[in-house]
Amino acid sequence: MRHTKVKDLLNSTTTLQEVNAKGWVRTFRNNQFIALNDGSTINNIQCVVDFENTPDETLKRITTGAAVSVTGNLVESKGAGQKYEIKVAKLEILGDSDPEKFPMQPKKHSLEFLRENAHLRVRTNAFGAIMRIRSVLSFAVHNYFQQKGFVYVNTPIITGADAEGAGEMFQVTSLPLENLPKNEEGTIDYKKDFFGKHTNLTVSGQLEGETFAMALGQIYTFGPTFRAENSNTSRHLAEFWMIEPEVAFNDLDANMDLAEDFIQYVIKYALDNCGDDLKFLEGRLLEEEKSKPQAERSEMTLLEKLNFVLENNFKRISYTEAIDILRESTPNKKKKFSYIINEWGADLQSEHERYLVEKHFKCPVILFDYPANIKAFYMRLNEDGKTVRAMDILFPGIGEIVGGSQREERFDVLVEKMAALGIDEKELSWYLDTRRFGSAVHSGFGLGFERLVLFVTGMTNIRDVIPFPRTPGSAEF
Amino acid sequence: MRHTKVKDLLNSTTTLQEVNAKGWVRTFRNNQFIALNDGSTINNIQCVVDFENTPDETLKRITTGAAVSVTGNLVESKGAGQKYEIKVAKLEILGDSDPEKFPMQPKKHSLEFLRENAHLRVRTNAFGAIMRIRSVLSFAVHNYFQQKGFVYVNTPIITGADAEGAGEMFQVTSLPLENLPKNEEGTIDYKKDFFGKHTNLTVSGQLEGETFAMALGQIYTFGPTFRAENSNTSRHLAEFWMIEPEVAFNDLDANMDLAEDFIQYVIKYALDNCGDDLKFLEGRLLEEEKSKPQAERSEMTLLEKLNFVLENNFKRISYTEAIDILRESTPNKKKKFSYIINEWGADLQSEHERYLVEKHFKCPVILFDYPANIKAFYMRLNEDGKTVRAMDILFPGIGEIVGGSQREERFDVLVEKMAALGIDEKELSWYLDTRRFGSAVHSGFGLGFERLVLFVTGMTNIRDVIPFPRTPGSAEF
Repeated sequence: MRHTKVKDLLNSTTTLQEVNAKGWVRTFRNNQFIALNDGSTINNIQCVVDFENTPDETLKRITTGAAVSVTGNLVESKGAGQKYEIKVAKLEILGDSDPEKFPMQPKKHSLEFLRENAHLRVRTNAFGAIMRIRSVLSFAVHNYFQQKGFVYVNTPIITGADAEGAGEMFQVTSLPLENLPKNEEGTIDYKKDFFGKHTNLTVSGQLEGETFAMALGQIYTFGPTFRAENSNTSRHLAEFWMIEPEVAFNDLDANMDLAEDFIQYVIKYALDNCGDDLKFLEGRLLEEEKSKPQAERSEMTLLEKLNFVLENNFKRISYTEAIDILRESTPNKKKKFSYIINEWGADLQSEHERYLVEKHFKCPVILFDYPANIKAFYMRLNEDGKTVRAMDILFPGIGEIVGGSQREERFDVLVEKMAALGIDEKELSWYLDTRRFGSAVHSGFGLGFERLVLFVTGMTNIRDVIPFPRTPGSAEF
Repeated sequence: MRHTKVKDLLNSTTTLQEVNAKGWVRTFRNNQFIALNDGSTINNIQCVVDFENTPDETLKRITTGAAVSVTGNLVESKGAGQKYEIKVAKLEILGDSDPEKFPMQPKKHSLEFLRENAHLRVRTNAFGAIMRIRSVLSFAVHNYFQQKGFVYVNTPIITGADAEGAGEMFQVTSLPLENLPKNEEGTIDYKKDFFGKHTNLTVSGQLEGETFAMALGQIYTFGPTFRAENSNTSRHLAEFWMIEPEVAFNDLDANMDLAEDFIQYVIKYALDNCGDDLKFLEGRLLEEEKSKPQAERSEMTLLEKLNFVLENNFKRISYTEAIDILRESTPNKKKKFSYIINEWGADLQSEHERYLVEKHFKCPVILFDYPANIKAFYMRLNEDGKTVRAMDILFPGIGEIVGGSQREERFDVLVEKMAALGIDEKELSWYLDTRRFGSAVHSGFGLGFERLVLFVTGMTNIRDVIPFPRTPGSAEF
């Protein structure tokens, strides 16, 4: 007989005759009560075993992690905590789980231990919840853009274009490293490599995305992106998923509107569709923080924080205003910042962003109109000649979650800027075609998906919100 | 003023006062009629310019590919072919397009020429349609699985596990190739590489996906996958997107049901949501085939073919039955096949698959229960000891579109098989954990997304259904 998902059984509105459930044992109490989970929900269904009529050797095999099939009636539960339970008539052990060996015992494991067991940690409540929320957030992303008529574009992962300079790149090759072919000059002969040239993993699909936006109007990417940077922090991954919308005819204001509306939509979508998982993570966070001194605890619970983002507009201020605020701030005057803000033009560090978001405004902040020389070449130069139409969105506890800009649509200005930075015009000739033929104002942004998941789940280390994290020294599985 | 999308203007139910549209000129006729497209639909909106009151120098700049902004009333059109048109009161050239230089002139270009201009081909009717359909199909994939409660899992792109052997892999490194670090044995010191080990680009997320299915129940992946194979064919890409669902407690029959239902769902979704684009491509195909001899033309139009797949069950036959059919077939007897089928156990070639699908059954076919020794190690061994619970779905004109199996859930059998194939048990110890702890019957499949897009769009070369194709010798953009 076909099994019914635990989620559907728990949501049943009546008792049911003879149902079958399959899943994994979370706990087995009093030789009688199985808490059964099948991943469809964070909640377990209680299965009551008729222990007097079940052989001892079977009861012994009902251990944490074992896969079982239970058949019986769905009846009203006499115990607290659940409406229905399964009165087990037939129990079958599908796969054993030796309690001496199974690493995921029902006790508190360190996050580090769980990371080392990334293939098993998803069997815990917390990681099951995180991965379900991640999935729902992904779908919210697609929902948002598809409803608005955006076209999803898969920009290339392997790229022969390496002119953007958004970060250190990984090289992709099929050459035999132990015996590299050389050309006449004695350097590596990349003509013999798979693609006939030197290739890397993409750091951004933006430039390719722009070429599509200038034909399809509104596009978005959502795919993996790579940085070969030795950043061993709780906010960086070598492989992460990025969302990059690009919209023809949008200026920076429209770009900010889009980013804010988008973020609020996906967070609302998670609140509407991941209630149980979010509630569990909220409780987990409260538990975690109990051991911290009062001053270090969050001012809001997880759900309060998410609702706060929905109910309040993001504060929009120019870089120049931000510099004024920072210059006058107590930590700047008392020289508590590692980098003291003295002059307009300084690049903002994480400590400054956190001050603005967490201390000064206490809400998400959009900074815009940055100095041209600390931002990328493709951003639209303002009439002042020294700032560009860039924007960064800063989130409490996360820092930068979005980076975007209105793009420089003027061919001559763009080429001049590339020349000044030593970017090869020929190498990016295809990109310049967007400005050669039917150029127009357009804008876009990039959102690091894992940072969004980090924010929504209330986790603190980015390695805990992606199935198999890739970081310096670690590419297991 | 905010512009309105061309699609919305064309779908208007009334005339409108003062609308603004922004887009690119497709054609400009009689110094008066602009066919304007903004990518929101394959259809252009006709914009009627008051040429007598427009300066000549402006009229001259209305060229194919130019970006323009037009403002005026949406009025009923007197011309044939459209209900509404814009009576232009104000016209602004946003970005010029020099007709001497713009490569995408309104004439027939070869597909090869368009591939070389992948950043511009999306400005043509055909490629705009293909990319919109691709996007809608992507969304259909997510819709299908999310509605059924599957969890979307992003399996790793860079992987340190290379034991599966599904194909040749690309190496990923951040070592300086001109100056590779060596260890004491004189071989390359991968401890100094970014991840501290030799890493590749993934060929499949299946093994990692299985570990998640054995916790979350139903999962799917949808991400880029790589093969460093020198296959310069119209059906192969070095970088392509793959969908891999994996379901705990599903046997092979349930797996076949899922695959068939899934494919029919996404095709129906495209039919329901891409009518205009599909109709255009159907017309394009009919036009293409006019130059072919009658015998080589398709028996069905594109839409007929898609509806046929919806209305007919896929034919399910075992490998053994297929061998019998092939052995008795005319091309086999007349030795027209390049590989003559003599015995049970032969690996099926593309010519055999095509015969079964296109000549014998004339419908999609699911082949199952293949000989164990021509299939992967993780497939469930049947009780006969010589076949495995594998399935391939074959499509007319495409060949294999899905490959899947019920997985070997028995630890001992799996380990024995790995040993026989020389697969390092230690290397895949994490994978074996799924069979060590709470193992159960489970199944899954992989669907090459581009082959699906190929089928739905009626295109014949896989390079034409992905934005920037990666093939041997080609990684431009």
